[in-house]
Amino acid sequence: MDGDAGWLDEREDEVWRTFFDMQVLFWRRLTHQLQQETGLSEPDFAILTALAKAPEGRLRPFELSGVIQFEKSRLHHQLTRMVGRGLVTRDACPDTSRGAVVTLSPQGRAAITEAIPRRAEHIRRWLTGPLDDGQLDALGQISATMLAALRTDGPDTGYDCEA
Amino acid sequence: MDGDAGWLDEREDEVWRTFFDMQVLFWRRLTHQLQQETGLSEPDFAILTALAKAPEGRLRPFELSGVIQFEKSRLHHQLTRMVGRGLVTRDACPDTSRGAVVTLSPQGRAAITEAIPRRAEHIRRWLTGPLDDGQLDALGQISATMLAALRTDGPDTGYDCEA
Repeated sequence: MDGDAGWLDEREDEVWRTFFDMQVLFWRRLTHQLQQETGLSEPDFAILTALAKAPEGRLRPFELSGVIQFEKSRLHHQLTRMVGRGLVTRDACPDTSRGAVVTLSPQGRAAITEAIPRRAEHIRRWLTGPLDDGQLDALGQISATMLAALRTDGPDTGYDCEA
Repeated sequence: MDGDAGWLDEREDEVWRTFFDMQVLFWRRLTHQLQQETGLSEPDFAILTALAKAPEGRLRPFELSGVIQFEKSRLHHQLTRMVGRGLVTRDACPDTSRGAVVTLSPQGRAAITEAIPRRAEHIRRWLTGPLDDGQLDALGQISATMLAALRTDGPDTGYDCEA
């Protein structure tokens, strides 16, 4: 497909495929390992992490949808399951008459406190461990260069803000 | 959190965050742009691409589940929507008495033939374009190094094979 302007050239295509395969397998390993060791899925982990960083462990559902990029109904079902497992509570928002607020439960805080160092171990095992110092620096710079290009194309706070 | 063996050190953490943010925004941009320009979602694109590469444009559902990492019921619903939009057909498997086979329709082939060069443009815009030659080579090598480490930990053909 070389020479056709619509396609990647051979070198671009090779880097793209390797980068793509790496990302797919990286996330498969991270997801699988976290689930096995802690019982948490990626959406569980992302939501609990965001709540753990928030003041008083509370966020509105729309704030969480920016964290995990779920549509409203899928986020609702995800939160319902997490409420059922005792990881979070969902209550009427105390400050306004509209909407709900999601709060980290003590059990949810214990789960994320256990999970974060596990995730760090997995990042060491598959990202920072295999790369030497030069590669690690290069990956940081490459990621920053790509981020700058990605950010010039619009806000990155979620689909709702990009439409 | 430096000095705690469970956590990433400052440099590891910085590279990890930049790498993570880049990936999230990269996929958000790619997904959003493809959807806007072609009406195809990432699962649509992955399934149509796999079928377009397969002999006679046919695959069994379990072969597709290895491509997009959907659970069986989610894949079933995804394929039902794609059948409804005329992108694929789903028939009884001709060679055996068990299961179904999914086949690319002429309309599906037209859709993926149009979408593949769009995706290539997006990869150029956000990956190969912003990086200089040295960064592109480095990213290929870094990805290959990570892939080698990831692959020593087991097969990468899907969740079912890792359990």
